[in-house]
Amino acid sequence: MKNTFNHLIDTASLSLTEIDELLRLALDIKKSPQTYVGACNGKIMATLFYEPSTRTMMSFQSAMLRLDGGVIGFDNPSGSSVTKGESLKDTAKVVSSYSDLLVIRAPWEGAAKAAALTADCPVINAGDGGHLHPTQTLTDLATLSAELGRLNNLTIGLCGDLKYGRTTHSLVKTLSKYKGNRFVLISDKNFTLPDYIKNHIAATDCTFTESDSLGDALPQLDVLYMTRTQRERLAVGENPTTFVLTPQLMSQGKKTLAVLHPLPRVDEISPLVDDDPRALYFKQANYGMYVRMSLIVTLLNITKSHPPVPLLNGKTYDGISCLNPKCVTNPAYNNVNLPRSFLRTGNTYECEYCSHPRAGRGD
Amino acid sequence: MKNTFNHLIDTASLSLTEIDELLRLALDIKKSPQTYVGACNGKIMATLFYEPSTRTMMSFQSAMLRLDGGVIGFDNPSGSSVTKGESLKDTAKVVSSYSDLLVIRAPWEGAAKAAALTADCPVINAGDGGHLHPTQTLTDLATLSAELGRLNNLTIGLCGDLKYGRTTHSLVKTLSKYKGNRFVLISDKNFTLPDYIKNHIAATDCTFTESDSLGDALPQLDVLYMTRTQRERLAVGENPTTFVLTPQLMSQGKKTLAVLHPLPRVDEISPLVDDDPRALYFKQANYGMYVRMSLIVTLLNITKSHPPVPLLNGKTYDGISCLNPKCVTNPAYNNVNLPRSFLRTGNTYECEYCSHPRAGRGD
Amino acid sequence: MKNTFNHLIDTASLSLTEIDELLRLALDIKKSPQTYVGACNGKIMATLFYEPSTRTMMSFQSAMLRLDGGVIGFDNPSGSSVTKGESLKDTAKVVSSYSDLLVIRAPWEGAAKAAALTADCPVINAGDGGHLHPTQTLTDLATLSAELGRLNNLTIGLCGDLKYGRTTHSLVKTLSKYKGNRFVLISDKNFTLPDYIKNHIAATDCTFTESDSLGDALPQLDVLYMTRTQRERLAVGENPTTFVLTPQLMSQGKKTLAVLHPLPRVDEISPLVDDDPRALYFKQANYGMYVRMSLIVTLLNITKSHPPVPLLNGKTYDGISCLNPKCVTNPAYNNVNLPRSFLRTGNTYECEYCSHPRAGRGD
Repeated sequence: MKNTFNHLIDTASLSLTEIDELLRLALDIKKSPQTYVGACNGKIMATLFYEPSTRTMMSFQSAMLRLDGGVIGFDNPSGSSVTKGESLKDTAKVVSSYSDLLVIRAPWEGAAKAAALTADCPVINAGDGGHLHPTQTLTDLATLSAELGRLNNLTIGLCGDLKYGRTTHSLVKTLSKYKGNRFVLISDKNFTLPDYIKNHIAATDCTFTESDSLGDALPQLDVLYMTRTQRERLAVGENPTTFVLTPQLMSQGKKTLAVLHPLPRVDEISPLVDDDPRALYFKQANYGMYVRMSLIVTLLNITKSHPPVPLLNGKTYDGISCLNPKCVTNPAYNNVNLPRSFLRTGNTYECEYCSHPRAGRGD
Repeated sequence: MKNTFNHLIDTASLSLTEIDELLRLALDIKKSPQTYVGACNGKIMATLFYEPSTRTMMSFQSAMLRLDGGVIGFDNPSGSSVTKGESLKDTAKVVSSYSDLLVIRAPWEGAAKAAALTADCPVINAGDGGHLHPTQTLTDLATLSAELGRLNNLTIGLCGDLKYGRTTHSLVKTLSKYKGNRFVLISDKNFTLPDYIKNHIAATDCTFTESDSLGDALPQLDVLYMTRTQRERLAVGENPTTFVLTPQLMSQGKKTLAVLHPLPRVDEISPLVDDDPRALYFKQANYGMYVRMSLIVTLLNITKSHPPVPLLNGKTYDGISCLNPKCVTNPAYNNVNLPRSFLRTGNTYECEYCSHPRAGRGD
Repeated sequence: MKNTFNHLIDTASLSLTEIDELLRLALDIKKSPQTYVGACNGKIMATLFYEPSTRTMMSFQSAMLRLDGGVIGFDNPSGSSVTKGESLKDTAKVVSSYSDLLVIRAPWEGAAKAAALTADCPVINAGDGGHLHPTQTLTDLATLSAELGRLNNLTIGLCGDLKYGRTTHSLVKTLSKYKGNRFVLISDKNFTLPDYIKNHIAATDCTFTESDSLGDALPQLDVLYMTRTQRERLAVGENPTTFVLTPQLMSQGKKTLAVLHPLPRVDEISPLVDDDPRALYFKQANYGMYVRMSLIVTLLNITKSHPPVPLLNGKTYDGISCLNPKCVTNPAYNNVNLPRSFLRTGNTYECEYCSHPRAGRGD
């Protein structure tokens, strides 16, 4: 198993210093874009989008093109070799022989890590099902850092479907690394933040409270992070309440409130809020492009000098396989030769691809 | 409502001086392409094609790449955020934060104007349903200007489906701005040019006659503009006659006749005509690329110096909404927050997006 | 009928000197890529993929971008003008007016040659149905040449579906041009190499034997060329045996054995073979990119100085049309105005598009 490069699979693998450096560089590129034109001259980025995501794809493409690099790839799974039965490992191996950087988006949880195991170049996770979406988290952090001037001692409301919303999970986990943040979890009772993430907060210097009323929660917030209900990820019969941010509600917020949203929005923010200077979600999309420029430049450079971080740190256990049907190791997805790898804690085996904790002997 | 940029939504908004300048620049680029390499270095164009149009898309892409700019975008609506319920306004807002120029093609009439209302960069209309296709019109004009040396005092035959053919509508309206042009409208009786365009000609210095025989009309023509029946735009049961240009018919034309066609052709021009030097339709496609280069350079430059042209000049009227089912303001298309805007003349309210004149109180 | 350019439709039209020069240049670019950056500055390549092939498309795109050229095109037939009824000839004519090089992949046999008849620039065949795939063959040759140091006096095993596998057909025909090669044809009895290719070998300095056992054949081989069963090309009811290369079988091979595969693989090579240094299939993919760079540079340059090679050398015969339903001249594919052209030998008329030999008067 080779791993000669540094990848971005999960923000959890980044130290605070590394995050801060990525954000600093993103803001410097935004300030002086001309300085960075040509930074990727002669380099090729491949975007392997096994699931459509126009916005994320265009953000990455624009980032690479502005650095004078080239872009190849597909945005449409039916046009890919996967339809000829090829494994993700083979695709990653071959496409990385054409390119200097792979950006992968896939519906299978753990897909980017699986690809990184064989790729001959750095891999960026651009979303692996409902699991992780680290460049969105870095985008959120860059927006808060630039617009509020700090990432600590904030009261952060997260509103909407907190059960399935991977962007909120990842944001909470990362902001918990900073001191004194307080999370207000605003959701309907059947769509609360999963316990394992609440436990994660509890183990840090940060705190959380829960609420089922956006109106009640709003006045105390420094940040309001609204999310779309990801209907494509709901189980049959699930139908969460949509919380809607209106100008009336905005009138109860602080003057310095920052409203974020990973976009696309559907109904959860009234368009009448758009002209409020506290509505930062469109600016946020723009920060996302600079974060991706920063990440591309960084991964192409550190690869030269830094020792690689190992991708798999666990073990294979006889008779243990991941029980998450959406995991990239599910045999249905044609990746049967991926090495299984679990982090064991007592009787719990956490899959190192999809982070699923239920895997257990005899389950 | 912001409008900080100049866009190309409709050739009707261009003065003759502006048109002539765009054509002059296009022909200069064609003559000295090397002078313009690098003109868009570091700039990004996004092509948002909600409806496939390979030819138009490739023409725009090639234009931008030849100017050393970068291209992002999609050509396939199923891969777009629209499938996640996003409004056109939001898409335009976000994508324009990644790019310096938006090129929009959509099946909804008025879509490009709607996008321009929120975009943070210039917008080019690359076809909005059956409504407008201004870069095709500029292509037609560039071809005539370069090949015939003038845009006035021409006898211009337009042949085929003149009822739905937006390219002929737009060409007639624009050529009517020049002096002494005479239009010969060749179509079957159920597919004649709409009255409002005939009225448009009648209000100018130009004239028209109608014919249902290509053979009768041909000998007098300086220009013959053939069109494809746009089957995708016909109502159920409509089945227009296809007029077919053959070598035999060509033998009756002037030696200086110019045959144009917006392409793709189906059956309406025999391939045996292709080698006739008067068949200019393939040259015309090539002029189209230079026209788009001219337009891209112009829009990226004038944005810096010229005051913006307002996009909406009408008013919202209580109880008045557009009755055109294909209008971008139709609630079915998810753009419910577009400001309605109508130009009123007596009891007629013309929608400022799709130009539909039937909107009226109590209709 | 014009043919002002040199194209790559079939490796059969290349002399050994031309092949060797293409391979030499490919390996030189691989060795000194920096020397060739900028070689295609200001040039545009259009990729017309009427049939998806992610891998081939990305290889071509990366090749052109690394030479600093631009890329336009489509990878998805539903988005093409073909759906509006346009003939391949018209598409080739128009797209070549936007670009400097066309790369065509299509399910119709003879499609690239048909396109080359009207294109105003060089055309590369990137696969025309089950017929030809010349850049794959050049890739195979480059791999062998670089890794083994010679293309003659080799014992070459070809394994899998040899009936439909166009890559094996083309490789056999081309390697037969070199002296002293010996082919070992490993297939199940219903999927043997077609007679006309065996006859081709018999007419050269090379020889062949047949086998239905990979294990029996392996020890003697210098090269083992494994292939995927192309299920998309099988007739109903056909179900060839899959030969599977395993580490156990590899242990019987020579130390200098070279294992190639055009990829994507499905089951025919165990992933456990991947780490064997004799497994060259991933390296082979990388050579493919350099071969395409070599070809692009060569075609764009020789066009200036070399006289064009005629595309059609045969004649039209009254009452003779090609009987291959997959031939690009089949009227079902809308290319009715292609000139029919056959090479006659006695009563056999070989179609010059698809090479089908069965065409005959009164068949």
